[in-house]
Amino acid sequence: MVRLGQLGEREIVAKILSSLRPPPGLGPGDDAAAIDLCDRWLVVSSDLLGFTTHRPPGTSWERMGWMAAAVNFSDIASMGAEPIGFIASLALSSEMELSDLMEMVSGMDQCAEFCGTHLIGGDTKQGPGFISGTALGLVPKGEMLTRSGAKVGDLVAVTGSLGGAAAGWYSIEAGLEMPDARDRLTLVIPRVKEGRALAATGAVSCCMDISDGLAVSIHEICRLSGVGTEIVWESIPVFEDVPEVAEKTGVPVREMVLHYGGDYELLFTFPHDKLDVVRDSSVDFYIIGRVVAGGDKILIAESQIEKIEDRGYEHFRD
Amino acid sequence: MVRLGQLGEREIVAKILSSLRPPPGLGPGDDAAAIDLCDRWLVVSSDLLGFTTHRPPGTSWERMGWMAAAVNFSDIASMGAEPIGFIASLALSSEMELSDLMEMVSGMDQCAEFCGTHLIGGDTKQGPGFISGTALGLVPKGEMLTRSGAKVGDLVAVTGSLGGAAAGWYSIEAGLEMPDARDRLTLVIPRVKEGRALAATGAVSCCMDISDGLAVSIHEICRLSGVGTEIVWESIPVFEDVPEVAEKTGVPVREMVLHYGGDYELLFTFPHDKLDVVRDSSVDFYIIGRVVAGGDKILIAESQIEKIEDRGYEHFRD
Repeated sequence: MVRLGQLGEREIVAKILSSLRPPPGLGPGDDAAAIDLCDRWLVVSSDLLGFTTHRPPGTSWERMGWMAAAVNFSDIASMGAEPIGFIASLALSSEMELSDLMEMVSGMDQCAEFCGTHLIGGDTKQGPGFISGTALGLVPKGEMLTRSGAKVGDLVAVTGSLGGAAAGWYSIEAGLEMPDARDRLTLVIPRVKEGRALAATGAVSCCMDISDGLAVSIHEICRLSGVGTEIVWESIPVFEDVPEVAEKTGVPVREMVLHYGGDYELLFTFPHDKLDVVRDSSVDFYIIGRVVAGGDKILIAESQIEKIEDRGYEHFRD
Repeated sequence: MVRLGQLGEREIVAKILSSLRPPPGLGPGDDAAAIDLCDRWLVVSSDLLGFTTHRPPGTSWERMGWMAAAVNFSDIASMGAEPIGFIASLALSSEMELSDLMEMVSGMDQCAEFCGTHLIGGDTKQGPGFISGTALGLVPKGEMLTRSGAKVGDLVAVTGSLGGAAAGWYSIEAGLEMPDARDRLTLVIPRVKEGRALAATGAVSCCMDISDGLAVSIHEICRLSGVGTEIVWESIPVFEDVPEVAEKTGVPVREMVLHYGGDYELLFTFPHDKLDVVRDSSVDFYIIGRVVAGGDKILIAESQIEKIEDRGYEHFRD
């Protein structure tokens, strides 16, 4: 007998996926599932957030609601799709105050509005304090972005600075007043306009959102694309509060930038000769490295070149 | 300060809905949300099931998985849509055994297969034992079934017998061996073929699934269509084990047939002169009454005519 606590989340998901009849459309492994609607893809992302496990101390209910929507829209963005709706299933304690619930719903609706769409449905049951959000989007055939298309020679880029969510978390933990870092943690901006604009260029070879940290995301893209990458440490845009938080808390900058996650920027690749096309999309981005041959070569060039560690994500381990 | 436990579920949902920007497409209130895809509607249903609250004693994990998918596909069926996918977000205890999880996933996949589609994605987090299922479907423009189209003079019909799920529940509670009734409770058959066939006739004026009991469903249709109904008690098809369970447990037949719910048959209306068209759809159905004028006239004709009580559904009340 094997309990789930003896396994990692990846192992559990792999076992589930290997037991299923293979679905048509896009196979599992990307940010969202995709259903073939002939002329376009319907993409669907579903993420659970617990009120205890996913709510940093001091986070308002409005921000909790925003976050539940944002993490799902971020997955839609990373597929290059246009959001078309958000569904929220809520397992709520009967001790919860109505005003808190209304704030949370308002946060979800505000995020949906930011993404150009609506909260269109859901379910409400008594339960332990959980939001299961589902975001839906559409992307024209031929424009869908996946994790598996990176080619040797491609450039690797990100849509914004990293480490901010980590700085937010560690500053809260240490009792530091750093509102910008806190916002970065609790006011996730899903890159929906950027994702759609990048997809429309036709130049992007692969894309995913950096929900679990740059290192995990790089490893994921390399694994699914069968390539390696060489990232230049100095090219990675670091959120401005990160050095100060590192100094005051002792958490290394590199830890926050590479491994913490929660930044929800897009990580994407494109051929070197398409640089002008991608620049014309008016999406702000930073080139942080290049795709190289060999899946075992996931390297970072700093004072010396070393391997980027893949720590995975472990939500189940005892 | 108002706690959720002081309110009914309907009140909570009404407060949420009144606070939202009105979504385009079909407004809230039906079994599923609907998004306009120009030539067709995308319908989306999301339902939460808790392992403690929604798992009758002795229910296998396989059946729990089936049920999580079936209750969502039932909502898709009631809109007349063709299922195109199922998403499962799982909040699982680390104490859960892997083999139980695999059984549960298999049950979901089997139900998706029964409905002609696949389990296409989801999320897995550590949590208190919850499934949030989301089913997706497509229905051609002009064929979507809603709860609001019943007209005076229409006939009222159901796709199968009622009271079976209740008989299952009360027989388990009383320690009676009634496998057929138990199956009716834990092996919900979503009426997807029936829903699609009824929608394709173009004759059906309104439709919903009977998840919370016939009485609640009738009241819902009357409220949204602005009509009344007169149901003939003797015309209601009663699941065969109901009288025996009633006799042995003391729970009245009427209680099981009208108020318990869990049967997931479709309740629908259509004009009298379209009876032949509906019969030609090859869907089995039973006519149980007719639509009358006046929203306050929700009556049942037995030895004497009386009002059908609307008890609503109360998942939150302390």
